[in-house]
Amino acid sequence: MKKDAILICTGCGKEFPLNRIHPRCARCNEPLEVAYGRLAQVEIPARGTMLERYRDFLPFSAPRPEISLGEGNTPLLKAGALAEELGMRSLFFKNETQNPTWSFKDRGTVTGLMHAVSLGITKIGTVSTGNMAVSVAAYGARAGLETYVLVSQGIAEEKIAPIAIHAPRLLTVDGDYGELYFRSLEVGQRRGIYFINSDVPFRVEGSKTIAFEICEQLGFQAPAYVVVPTSSGGNFRGIQKGFEELRRVGAIDRLPRMVAAQAAGCAPIAAAFGRGSLTVERVGEPRTIAHAIENPFPPSGNQVLRKLRAHGGLAVTVTDEEIIAAQGFMAGTGIFGQPEGAVPLAAVKKLRAENVLKPGDSVVCIVSGAGLKYTAALRLHRFEVRPVTMERLEEALVG
Amino acid sequence: MKKDAILICTGCGKEFPLNRIHPRCARCNEPLEVAYGRLAQVEIPARGTMLERYRDFLPFSAPRPEISLGEGNTPLLKAGALAEELGMRSLFFKNETQNPTWSFKDRGTVTGLMHAVSLGITKIGTVSTGNMAVSVAAYGARAGLETYVLVSQGIAEEKIAPIAIHAPRLLTVDGDYGELYFRSLEVGQRRGIYFINSDVPFRVEGSKTIAFEICEQLGFQAPAYVVVPTSSGGNFRGIQKGFEELRRVGAIDRLPRMVAAQAAGCAPIAAAFGRGSLTVERVGEPRTIAHAIENPFPPSGNQVLRKLRAHGGLAVTVTDEEIIAAQGFMAGTGIFGQPEGAVPLAAVKKLRAENVLKPGDSVVCIVSGAGLKYTAALRLHRFEVRPVTMERLEEALVG
Repeated sequence: MKKDAILICTGCGKEFPLNRIHPRCARCNEPLEVAYGRLAQVEIPARGTMLERYRDFLPFSAPRPEISLGEGNTPLLKAGALAEELGMRSLFFKNETQNPTWSFKDRGTVTGLMHAVSLGITKIGTVSTGNMAVSVAAYGARAGLETYVLVSQGIAEEKIAPIAIHAPRLLTVDGDYGELYFRSLEVGQRRGIYFINSDVPFRVEGSKTIAFEICEQLGFQAPAYVVVPTSSGGNFRGIQKGFEELRRVGAIDRLPRMVAAQAAGCAPIAAAFGRGSLTVERVGEPRTIAHAIENPFPPSGNQVLRKLRAHGGLAVTVTDEEIIAAQGFMAGTGIFGQPEGAVPLAAVKKLRAENVLKPGDSVVCIVSGAGLKYTAALRLHRFEVRPVTMERLEEALVG
Repeated sequence: MKKDAILICTGCGKEFPLNRIHPRCARCNEPLEVAYGRLAQVEIPARGTMLERYRDFLPFSAPRPEISLGEGNTPLLKAGALAEELGMRSLFFKNETQNPTWSFKDRGTVTGLMHAVSLGITKIGTVSTGNMAVSVAAYGARAGLETYVLVSQGIAEEKIAPIAIHAPRLLTVDGDYGELYFRSLEVGQRRGIYFINSDVPFRVEGSKTIAFEICEQLGFQAPAYVVVPTSSGGNFRGIQKGFEELRRVGAIDRLPRMVAAQAAGCAPIAAAFGRGSLTVERVGEPRTIAHAIENPFPPSGNQVLRKLRAHGGLAVTVTDEEIIAAQGFMAGTGIFGQPEGAVPLAAVKKLRAENVLKPGDSVVCIVSGAGLKYTAALRLHRFEVRPVTMERLEEALVG
């Protein structure tokens, strides 16, 4: 790994060596992040894996394409008719559903795995029941590592199968799921298992490539707003950090305003933001259709709040009804995201209705995962199907 | 559209103008294909949409990026450990599951749609219950066209929802499904609805970009073999045509041998190939877990047979047991394909066991669609899940 990168605490600034695998500060328990001594503006190559293209912004000396599954490099789609309907000039969807396991998680999984491999660690793991579990299982399989996936007991069979197909060591754990996040990190550090959990520093390093790609795709212009479905806060932190690094090297001259979009039924970050606090409080009983952003006590929540405050960001909540409506609205333009992937569009509609977003603002929505991930949500939509006989087909097609 | 391209019949060579929307020969009923007067070897740009990058190999004058959903540009992954296990030097997966609607169909949908739009047609349609229906519905939504999707009556609710979410005009048709393919083309021609069915000439033009990408990704070397899950024959034809055009312009010096891989329970092409015939016969009762390649009377079957014969290709069948085993085997390397996406790997195992494939042969498997498309197949796998209490977690992770 590169010599001039270190880990620093996002809360108190304490420094740690880059070979630390525990992702939080030993002093204040806030999450750590990678800090770079020198970053230089570079020509980003058009071809290559994500790790190869952005190697100047990552601390790995050799990108190792053999562990890549072809993550990143996802389309940024301009929504034409939809933008018009909302009275906006430029609305974009960053379609993360085209990743190897069909969610944004793959970006952070490959960087987390690279960190583990760079340290000579051959066992990885994660705590998740959704996108991240699938992603870590797939990359662990790709790299041929011993891979542990911890899920909570009572998880639905339909959620297990897409993880289990990659043949990780799958454990259902009886006990508090939130506690499992911290317990796994401790045990992992003691036992040499690298847990690539939701907001660990090297997952954040992967997420920042979303910002890099958006800027490249917009011709090195930052958009006015970027709207991120926000749960643990890891992906939000990564995208924010990516824009900050681009500004640092002079590739863009201003940061976009970041919007943390949460489901009304589980909105600890938006609640804290609303009351002007820099500390998240645990949500008692989370309840939303957007299960992928249902973290009641986000481990990077405080850091997201600090960033929102520092850079003029926003936090916004949307109801399940608004989420489902946005999912249909977005599919009506060709993009089928899972419910939390539609949360940004729901937030945009709301912010536009309140005239927070102006007609001239360019806005990017992060579509975090594929609609096929959670087909139960489809039952909440109303579909029209028309039966017809072969004889009356022509009539039906004309009429 | 470009002036020097025409349509010719793959069976009898009769010529038709490029603005014809009926995809078959008025004389012999074999499928038509696009023929180019002049093709020049060009530098393929690294950036841009699929239609922009390959514009010199397509008949459209303007690529219209606003109808793209970011199709193509999928990874070619080298399988390391898996190749070793099979005693092969180079085995690759072309992962088509990373397309906008998570199957290869998107490539042909966008080229079919471009043809329609170029002709000033504003209504499109398709006959499909699977990947193609979803793809056409999504692209129709993207382009804002009136989009008809015809499915057979009695289709399962779970198959309807991922199509319906894109809000096409969805008709369930009572009657013979095979007949519907031909009937829709006739009605479409009369009524100005462009049916982008499975093997229409402009869908084939989209599929050929798979060959272009494979060659680019291998540094303009053709592999020794390309294994394609084969149903209607449209995708096979496209990939074959792509390699032929690359050879024509001098980008590669030999063609790969193409392998049409079919499920044993529905193998009209492999059956005809086996008996040395150039004419497919209808399969009575198709029965396979790989529903996406379950066409009992493939409309491009004869043309696939002609190509296999002309260029030393192979046709091979695999059982459902072999398909499910290959699906697990492939997921164990990080790629989760739907059952027919695992058919090529099952075929490779078989051909390798028979020593048809030699250790030194480079082989590319086309992984046609995502595993999440058909989760019912997951029930045929055996998964190990280990329950553990929080207190005994450390023990379980070490033991």
